[in-house]
Amino acid sequence: MTYTLVLLRHGESEWNAQNLFTGWVDVPLSDKGRAEAEHGGSLIKDGGVQPDVVHTSLLRRAITTANLALDAADRHWIPVRRNWRLNERHYGALQGKDKKATLEEFGEEQFMTWRRSFDVPPPPIEPGSEFSQDGDVRYAGLGDDMPRTECLKDVIERFLPYWEESIVPDLKDGKVVLVAAHGNSLRALVKHLDGIGDEEIVGLNIPTGQPLVYRLDDDLKPTVPGGEYLDPVAAKAAAEAVANQGR
Amino acid sequence: MTYTLVLLRHGESEWNAQNLFTGWVDVPLSDKGRAEAEHGGSLIKDGGVQPDVVHTSLLRRAITTANLALDAADRHWIPVRRNWRLNERHYGALQGKDKKATLEEFGEEQFMTWRRSFDVPPPPIEPGSEFSQDGDVRYAGLGDDMPRTECLKDVIERFLPYWEESIVPDLKDGKVVLVAAHGNSLRALVKHLDGIGDEEIVGLNIPTGQPLVYRLDDDLKPTVPGGEYLDPVAAKAAAEAVANQGR
Repeated sequence: MTYTLVLLRHGESEWNAQNLFTGWVDVPLSDKGRAEAEHGGSLIKDGGVQPDVVHTSLLRRAITTANLALDAADRHWIPVRRNWRLNERHYGALQGKDKKATLEEFGEEQFMTWRRSFDVPPPPIEPGSEFSQDGDVRYAGLGDDMPRTECLKDVIERFLPYWEESIVPDLKDGKVVLVAAHGNSLRALVKHLDGIGDEEIVGLNIPTGQPLVYRLDDDLKPTVPGGEYLDPVAAKAAAEAVANQGR
Repeated sequence: MTYTLVLLRHGESEWNAQNLFTGWVDVPLSDKGRAEAEHGGSLIKDGGVQPDVVHTSLLRRAITTANLALDAADRHWIPVRRNWRLNERHYGALQGKDKKATLEEFGEEQFMTWRRSFDVPPPPIEPGSEFSQDGDVRYAGLGDDMPRTECLKDVIERFLPYWEESIVPDLKDGKVVLVAAHGNSLRALVKHLDGIGDEEIVGLNIPTGQPLVYRLDDDLKPTVPGGEYLDPVAAKAAAEAVANQGR
């Protein structure tokens, strides 16, 4: 028995297009991002990995990506599960800030530490900041789990319980599972699946709108390390574009 | 304790625009239908009846209506439940046929019987018809429940178990429930809620894209018979337009 898991990072959001740190700020997809999602859905359909269930974050850009991709794949009608544990990394005080201006203000080293270090989070967001999620009803039940900033290590810690408790049971049930989420929640998952080291994960970029298919064995280990992109040429180009963000 | 239920009939589909009988054929919304859904979502937001959970059919026009309305209402992130029991009435052999041509071919009396009689279904759809749902995986588990034609009475019979087992528990849990569905599955629900007679329901038309809010008492009886439209003037005009379809 192999299990099939399809990962899809949301396409360009309006803030990606404006080169702003987003994190938990709930911005919509740009028109380009909507087209990416639809194209991702076509690849899923043509690739014969039609999902039986979809898991998304609570953020609009992942939810819309899932909606558009599933519609393009004729799978709009499948069950939907959503959880904050699939959200993008909380970017703390950087949320709403321009990436290029942040790079210039703080320099290459600090910038790359905040963007890509495994265990150093940005400064926490101030209470009452216009870019904080204080008072957002969708997070009302989180209590002490509500982050004010996160590094990738933090994302892994809050993501893995959801993987074990909600996604793995769907896989073991024989369902093809689509996870429509974000650069860092998907990096958390890929790190876990492929056993990637804390240093090595820093250099891994997941392209937007490119379905990544993992076939997992009985122990939920990938039969092909790193999985397989349905469109490997486009995925490589897109990953390089992500790596150059903020330049 | 009162419970809050919001009903939303999907907006214009591409086949509504072409005046074809649709039933279970899975056609998309037209651009007008998409705009109706977004406007419905704005009314829901402005009306202060933000849903905590949404129930949809398995048909694209209701699903897209829910997606667009919830996005407009900033409720894109709520839990989603879908079930075939919320589908439109199965129109049998009429699926895919032009409404005006059908009226001319069969005459006013037969046409209105098929459209509006309580317990006379159209002829069943032929196996293998291009407009049948034979082999559609989303209905694979239905077995003998799979309809080949339906009258409103049939819709009520297959809808009510879902009402009792899935929607009522959400209401009793204190959730504001949105049901995004179809003319006849919503008529089935309204008939049940308001205790409308078999003859009387024939003349009741539910307008598209107009949120209809029911406040229900402990016995799930409407505190205001017939519920309240968030935009009563527009809802009245839209209901009259529905009544004149096929003319």
